[in-house]
Amino acid sequence: MSKLLIVGTVAFDAIETPFGKTDKILGGAGTYIGLSASNFDIDSAVVSVVGDDFPQQYLDLMKNNNINIDGIEVVEGGKTFFWSGKYHNDLNTRDTLDTQLNVLADFKPVVPESYKDAEFIMLGNLHPLVQLSLLEQVENPKLVVLDTMNFWMDNSLDDLMKVIAKVDVITINDEEARQLSGEYSLVKAARKIEEMGPKYVVIKKGEHGALLFHKEQIFFAPALPLEEVFDPTGAGDTFAGGFIGYLAKTGDISFENMKSAIIYGSNLASFCVEKFGTERMQSLTDGQINKRLNEFKKLTQFETQLD
Amino acid sequence: MSKLLIVGTVAFDAIETPFGKTDKILGGAGTYIGLSASNFDIDSAVVSVVGDDFPQQYLDLMKNNNINIDGIEVVEGGKTFFWSGKYHNDLNTRDTLDTQLNVLADFKPVVPESYKDAEFIMLGNLHPLVQLSLLEQVENPKLVVLDTMNFWMDNSLDDLMKVIAKVDVITINDEEARQLSGEYSLVKAARKIEEMGPKYVVIKKGEHGALLFHKEQIFFAPALPLEEVFDPTGAGDTFAGGFIGYLAKTGDISFENMKSAIIYGSNLASFCVEKFGTERMQSLTDGQINKRLNEFKKLTQFETQLD
Repeated sequence: MSKLLIVGTVAFDAIETPFGKTDKILGGAGTYIGLSASNFDIDSAVVSVVGDDFPQQYLDLMKNNNINIDGIEVVEGGKTFFWSGKYHNDLNTRDTLDTQLNVLADFKPVVPESYKDAEFIMLGNLHPLVQLSLLEQVENPKLVVLDTMNFWMDNSLDDLMKVIAKVDVITINDEEARQLSGEYSLVKAARKIEEMGPKYVVIKKGEHGALLFHKEQIFFAPALPLEEVFDPTGAGDTFAGGFIGYLAKTGDISFENMKSAIIYGSNLASFCVEKFGTERMQSLTDGQINKRLNEFKKLTQFETQLD
Repeated sequence: MSKLLIVGTVAFDAIETPFGKTDKILGGAGTYIGLSASNFDIDSAVVSVVGDDFPQQYLDLMKNNNINIDGIEVVEGGKTFFWSGKYHNDLNTRDTLDTQLNVLADFKPVVPESYKDAEFIMLGNLHPLVQLSLLEQVENPKLVVLDTMNFWMDNSLDDLMKVIAKVDVITINDEEARQLSGEYSLVKAARKIEEMGPKYVVIKKGEHGALLFHKEQIFFAPALPLEEVFDPTGAGDTFAGGFIGYLAKTGDISFENMKSAIIYGSNLASFCVEKFGTERMQSLTDGQINKRLNEFKKLTQFETQLD
């Protein structure tokens, strides 16, 4: 059974969308990635930090989803990272209302001994130095996937470039790909980013799907057209968790298999946005996942006279 | 051999993009649709109007592409419709610099006798009353496809709704679908538009691809990611021409076959944007079309464990 090691925030979110608002609920990139990857039969662990205000029930929830939490440090007297945001009516844009780093400010990730030989590493969106520190603790991984965002490009570009140079796959959104590369065309942007280190570049376009680039090869997965997007929070992390979870389960990191991984990631993300926070991901069944996978096939597969 | 009847502008365009600008060149929805559909082995005709300033070489170009031009009226002493536009740096938005309706202002379409029994009708973007007039002249077509735009929603909505009620397929872009339906979700928008008449709704998203809706079924075709988009003019019309051209050639108007038609349309549109105006479409070979069709397959086709 493959080992997947995830580093990412485990946090409180307070979310407001046109459909309602929440109090502090379970959130964080590490949480979403972990829950998403838990749909595959793999041995995964999350490395993160929380305060002693973090409810045991949330930690239990992760454990009950077969996520190893030995690497989640609980800081006595500390407060858990908190993010609050409000989505605009189109749900594509949002304002951050509040960010309280709390225990995240001094986070020094410690990889549990039994996961230092993990084959698959997912570096969730965090300070690049935290991502680097995690990488330095693991031995010879088979595949390292990096997620990051414009905030680190704006504020810690040098450190970010060091991480980018060390990973196999990077996932970023279209605007971030343009910012990082200085190229408007995503084809050119991906090529420039490959020169920075990653052999594979995944560009996330939200409701417009995701692109996978590797040398001259390109694959595209649409987002499933949904009647209603309820809360987009965590969709990108859920996508990443499904992507690396599928690769870890199959153990196959070829471009062809990454195509399927992109579809599995998109599929899981399509559930995530249906309810607030992690709610939908907590009640997801294999039957529901497979049914929607068939919808993805119907959505994209076609016959041509060349067949 | 199926007959395809097209109504649409045949015009002069003057285009400015970040890559250069043109003098008056051949343009118009009818021209792009006709040239695109001419890649299929069908009997097609364009109904339109030009002034006597329209060069014979452009009419010959259409004839040489096996497009019947008996329905293109040449108004003695009249001037051809002229449009001029400038694209912004992202090539997704443009300003119209000049529009001279000229002979188009009094255009009364006349369908040539031998095309009144055409099985396939493409109503290119034009005043809804012109589209209606054409429809009234044809007998029992097998499939009518309508292309339109927000200008007619803003200025001739009642007339537009009359045309929409009579067609089988409508092609519009995402913003127009939202405007027409009052729904932000494209899934809901398509459902509302189906209630207005069309059994099939095609929503064009430019660089983000196109969606086909029919009752509960959805199909998605991406736009081919290109290194450089040179001039987007005519891409939507080329898409529509490829869509209906493929349907006319195969004679099969099932949802399954429409999937392929969407891919053929997207494929042809990907060539259109590579050069100014109709230039690329004039030099297109079957070999190039089939090669790129294979790229579309590689871009979108995947395996799952459900296979």
